[in-house]
Amino acid sequence: MYAVIFRAEVRELDAEYAVMAARMRDLAINEYGCVEFVACAEGNSEIAISYWESEEQIRQWKQNPEHIIAQEKGRSRWYKSYTVEVVEVVRAYRSGN
Amino acid sequence: MYAVIFRAEVRELDAEYAVMAARMRDLAINEYGCVEFVACAEGNSEIAISYWESEEQIRQWKQNPEHIIAQEKGRSRWYKSYTVEVVEVVRAYRSGN
Repeated sequence: MYAVIFRAEVRELDAEYAVMAARMRDLAINEYGCVEFVACAEGNSEIAISYWESEEQIRQWKQNPEHIIAQEKGRSRWYKSYTVEVVEVVRAYRSGN
Repeated sequence: MYAVIFRAEVRELDAEYAVMAARMRDLAINEYGCVEFVACAEGNSEIAISYWESEEQIRQWKQNPEHIIAQEKGRSRWYKSYTVEVVEVVRAYRSGN
């Protein structure tokens, strides 16, 4: 299993952002094989993690035309800065129920 | 580079939690070689990611006596459930400044 960790410092989120974020999530899950997507925002910080079966799915998703536009708007409007880390899950465990 | 992704559903966070969380962060960074720690809480969701140079550091940190007590309190008091994922960073890139 692979994951993409997106960590951002928010500049300003407008109405288009919420629409775009929901659309990106739907596209990733329904058309690109994303198996899980979690996000958390607090103050000017945002963390989003998507989970994938393969690196190839991640590469394909990065090149989706709508996603490319979203990335560009992210850089120019919504975020001051962000980092993206592609990671491979080595092991995982769970507590609780 | 390795990272530990902690994702939790919060039950209830009390005064002791804030003290413990700050102490754990200090210990991990100052005594166990954690190179970066980021956390985000929104509603009942919490995401925290710590970054490490090696898996051995992660193993050592998991076994710290104070950390073991914190993990136990996490399971019994603060969190309904959580997942821990140890991951290896495959590649990373950054936008903005």
